[in-house]
Amino acid sequence: MRILQCVPNFSEGRDPRFLEELEHVLARYPVKTLDLSMDADHNRADCTFLGAPEAVEECAAALCARAVELIDMREHTGSHPRMGAVDVVPFVPIRGIDMSEAVEVARRFGRSFAELHGVTVFFYEEACTSEGRRNLADVRRGEYEGMAAKLAEPDWQVDAGPQVFNERSGVTAVGARMPLVAFNVNLATGDLAVAKEIAAAVRHSSGGLRYVKAMGVDVAEEGIVQVSMNLVDYRRTPIHRAVELVRREAARHGVAVRECELVGLVPLEAVGDTFAYYLQISGFADTKVIERHLLPEEEP
Amino acid sequence: MRILQCVPNFSEGRDPRFLEELEHVLARYPVKTLDLSMDADHNRADCTFLGAPEAVEECAAALCARAVELIDMREHTGSHPRMGAVDVVPFVPIRGIDMSEAVEVARRFGRSFAELHGVTVFFYEEACTSEGRRNLADVRRGEYEGMAAKLAEPDWQVDAGPQVFNERSGVTAVGARMPLVAFNVNLATGDLAVAKEIAAAVRHSSGGLRYVKAMGVDVAEEGIVQVSMNLVDYRRTPIHRAVELVRREAARHGVAVRECELVGLVPLEAVGDTFAYYLQISGFADTKVIERHLLPEEEP
Repeated sequence: MRILQCVPNFSEGRDPRFLEELEHVLARYPVKTLDLSMDADHNRADCTFLGAPEAVEECAAALCARAVELIDMREHTGSHPRMGAVDVVPFVPIRGIDMSEAVEVARRFGRSFAELHGVTVFFYEEACTSEGRRNLADVRRGEYEGMAAKLAEPDWQVDAGPQVFNERSGVTAVGARMPLVAFNVNLATGDLAVAKEIAAAVRHSSGGLRYVKAMGVDVAEEGIVQVSMNLVDYRRTPIHRAVELVRREAARHGVAVRECELVGLVPLEAVGDTFAYYLQISGFADTKVIERHLLPEEEP
Repeated sequence: MRILQCVPNFSEGRDPRFLEELEHVLARYPVKTLDLSMDADHNRADCTFLGAPEAVEECAAALCARAVELIDMREHTGSHPRMGAVDVVPFVPIRGIDMSEAVEVARRFGRSFAELHGVTVFFYEEACTSEGRRNLADVRRGEYEGMAAKLAEPDWQVDAGPQVFNERSGVTAVGARMPLVAFNVNLATGDLAVAKEIAAAVRHSSGGLRYVKAMGVDVAEEGIVQVSMNLVDYRRTPIHRAVELVRREAARHGVAVRECELVGLVPLEAVGDTFAYYLQISGFADTKVIERHLLPEEEP
């Protein structure tokens, strides 16, 4: 068994027919859809699916072709940062496939997508061609409105597709990355300053843990605040270490953790690592989980 | 997908050819073998396999037929309690099958095995026909040497097979039960009295948690002691609650937990419950685990 995941994000979050179109495409391929949803404020659709690498690559190509046909970025507004109709296409190795293969798929997919649709493509994260493009935020800085100027800069020679701006479809980032664990810690306080201070303490950019991104967020409808985290490498910075650090920092403010939320899915390995940490189990591996043996065999 | 597990125990732990015989039988059925091992001191072999209920029932019948052919209890000695060549045959529902179906399989298997081989069968745990037979220790009390007398008692009318003792094959217990979680807590002390006191505090029989069996064990080669637990219903008494109680009791003796050991396998649900407990995740379900979606579909 070789399993690759793909999580394309599209700049359409208001027309329900768009999701139906994606559903029709997904149904034509031997892939499993884990999530398909849109957000009107963000004006953005998220799709998560997985399967054999070949099927995933073909299905991603068909989904993106349909999105480029349907979305005109000249009319797009929304609260989420974006730069293209097909905004980002990350490929995520799940099982029996290593990162270098995911990078290969991402680059082949990106070149083919760029050529077929005349859309500029930048490679990011593990698929990046220079360190300045590793971080998606750097690639997307300026957003759709700033891309024409960005493409004129010497630092932003395209990775694939035209060097001139495609006004209708914008620019697409294609990458390969580890599964991302999105994790929110809700605090028993309504004080946003506390959440922001904790976020600053735990995130890499301001001195915290290497593979943690974090921000303080007001959850006004519940009268609380939250530390919203992305754990971008759960092997090197595991979930339990990030959560324990948030708890220590919250305690320093006299604030309790009310509960946590896992946004989206989590790899079995990350669940097992946390299980083994709190129970002090040495030598735990996911082969200790009964269901692990019901999965199709990995290739040697 | 409907998955049943079977964990037969046989009274032969010294002749490696016996395991080879079991391997040959297992290879003839569409089942997955998770464990096949023997212990010379115990003079006992353990086998864990799973698959579709029909395949598991047929494979169990074939394994037990072979064991009855090969093992003569009249020559058997060993440190583990036992009463028959095929000592116990528990069926364990894993996925897409409920306990009542596992009980049905156990009883049908037990009647057929008893009739084919002329071996007395008692049903135990969820398959028991009276509360006095629920606990395997009660059924097995007296062991092989005491079974002839036991079968003469009015309380021990057989569930299947002959009411007279089969000297060659002994008596077999057939049951249905939840997956058992076997968990050892190693203490940073060599004082066996401490382990025994903690075990007595946490186990059901002496006032502790409802679904915990526990004993204090000397791990002489490592110079430490351990609280060895069987968690017989991880849904009602979850692993984390048992471990936290052991930790509290150990602290009262000024003793730290050095590490823990998971013996054998653990259901994904139990791993997820512990993950969600320590991370305070509300509404966690194993559908949040990516690999869960790679399993064959359950039947509705």
